[in-house]
Amino acid sequence: MKDIPTFAEVIEASERIRPFANRTPVFKSKWYDQQIGAELFFKCENFQKVGAFKFRGACNAVLTLSEKEGNRGIVTHSSGNHAQAVALAARTKGYQATIIMPKNAPSVKVRAVKEYGAKILFCEPTIDARKEMTYQFIDDTNAHFIHPYNHPMVIAGQGTVAKEFLEEIPDLDIIIAPVGGGGLISGTCISAKKIKPSIQVIGSEPELADDAYRSLKEGTIQPVLRTDTIADGLRTSLGDVTFKIMKENLDDLVTVSEKSIIREMRSVWERMKIIIESSSAVPVAACMDEKFEVKGKKIGIILTGGNVDLDKLPWM
Amino acid sequence: MKDIPTFAEVIEASERIRPFANRTPVFKSKWYDQQIGAELFFKCENFQKVGAFKFRGACNAVLTLSEKEGNRGIVTHSSGNHAQAVALAARTKGYQATIIMPKNAPSVKVRAVKEYGAKILFCEPTIDARKEMTYQFIDDTNAHFIHPYNHPMVIAGQGTVAKEFLEEIPDLDIIIAPVGGGGLISGTCISAKKIKPSIQVIGSEPELADDAYRSLKEGTIQPVLRTDTIADGLRTSLGDVTFKIMKENLDDLVTVSEKSIIREMRSVWERMKIIIESSSAVPVAACMDEKFEVKGKKIGIILTGGNVDLDKLPWM
Repeated sequence: MKDIPTFAEVIEASERIRPFANRTPVFKSKWYDQQIGAELFFKCENFQKVGAFKFRGACNAVLTLSEKEGNRGIVTHSSGNHAQAVALAARTKGYQATIIMPKNAPSVKVRAVKEYGAKILFCEPTIDARKEMTYQFIDDTNAHFIHPYNHPMVIAGQGTVAKEFLEEIPDLDIIIAPVGGGGLISGTCISAKKIKPSIQVIGSEPELADDAYRSLKEGTIQPVLRTDTIADGLRTSLGDVTFKIMKENLDDLVTVSEKSIIREMRSVWERMKIIIESSSAVPVAACMDEKFEVKGKKIGIILTGGNVDLDKLPWM
Repeated sequence: MKDIPTFAEVIEASERIRPFANRTPVFKSKWYDQQIGAELFFKCENFQKVGAFKFRGACNAVLTLSEKEGNRGIVTHSSGNHAQAVALAARTKGYQATIIMPKNAPSVKVRAVKEYGAKILFCEPTIDARKEMTYQFIDDTNAHFIHPYNHPMVIAGQGTVAKEFLEEIPDLDIIIAPVGGGGLISGTCISAKKIKPSIQVIGSEPELADDAYRSLKEGTIQPVLRTDTIADGLRTSLGDVTFKIMKENLDDLVTVSEKSIIREMRSVWERMKIIIESSSAVPVAACMDEKFEVKGKKIGIILTGGNVDLDKLPWM
């Protein structure tokens, strides 16, 4: 297993990515506060570069490479936000990024990755085909692989979200974030528990992709059983690094229904006038459905991203 | 004709509404800057109370009433953002607001006004019917009428947008805003020209509702000839106060096509991850279509609001 990043590495990440990443704003919503009887704070990673927190981890991982390593090229497999994040992060240093994407990836995502100057290799649309092509590519080129979450420097980068959040709102009682592969929630645990040991860190995932919930219950990493949740960023299983961090630090992990995810995605759009993707609505739904004790608490919600296909909205 | 508000009255308005209105953020977009070869600053009034700048003017108008006047009640006719703005502004002082709305007004707007505690009277869906019912109501109750734009205290309130904008970005070369009845652009002229006399203030409107363009050309107020522009906030003719201010101060007034409005509305959603209504896209379209000299300039765009029916998006 790879190393577990330390809070010192989060601080280093924070300095390292500062010239490239946005320090995203924290929004409030009087309407939400009144509905829920708590005080909600929304960390808007939808305003991050490439429209998602993923840029932090990818950028940190790229910047920790030596020039020699970077010049051998960078590779990852992803059809989502991590693909764009790696592409843009590599470009900031002039390194060549190669993204392995399933050949049925939406053309809008393919175009976005190309816009950032990355090369794309298309594979069959299965996880095995992706991995196989990635490993083959690494064998052939000696490129550096940036895993989307099970990578210490990626986790350290994602930890900068909670660091900024608590710098701005030091008296949060709870931080809640969505859980896919666990990179964000792991980084959040490392930062938040160090900055404020009494804070509660809560993970949230769709009922239809409750692998993290089952993994924590069973004590071993469980696979995602279905891939049909609307929260397409959260259809991933945990890695051994992220699982270990979560097991040791997470206070709670709650699941929410598809209906609640869609309702809160729309509600954030309507009430807060910001575009969030479905995965970001998961922790909002967890609060509104009171999946944990919310009354009177100061709750920090990480809105993870805002990349949405505007031709296909889930309520239509 | 009513008085033309002074910049001193804008400053007073600013103090008066401070406890109730949001000081909205200014956003940037690297993508837009690169596309256009200028530096754009977006004043996000979509994040204003009730989701639109209209709250500033309504709130200022309500707060300038004596308690005796306020207790006689407040009335306006509107089916748009001004209705919600007056309803909420009246509630901040505990005054009773009555909104005259056409009986075919969308139920979502009716509900929003009711949520803010206003009474609604429904009239036939014509401008004449609205006005007649309003005047009748004033005769019957002696309520105070808050015109949506041709009202000095409303204009002074809208002038606080440009005041905040120039406090934050003092070296803007140009401020551009949409023109409906002219309340916002008039307030912008009063503030901006006083704070920075060399600044250019530019109005923008849909080609399909180019009444302000024709009015300035003819020298007399011209009616709106069609009401089918997608920018439903801009289907209004000028008032004598707003027309006079515009005639004396406005540097340019440009018009844009429906296609460009829809394109930029979608583009702001996709690139900036914020929800703006179609009227807000009008000045963005004017910049992108280079309806005036943009290259190398620092341009302040007022994004007027974010109230959108998410079931009916114009690109669908």
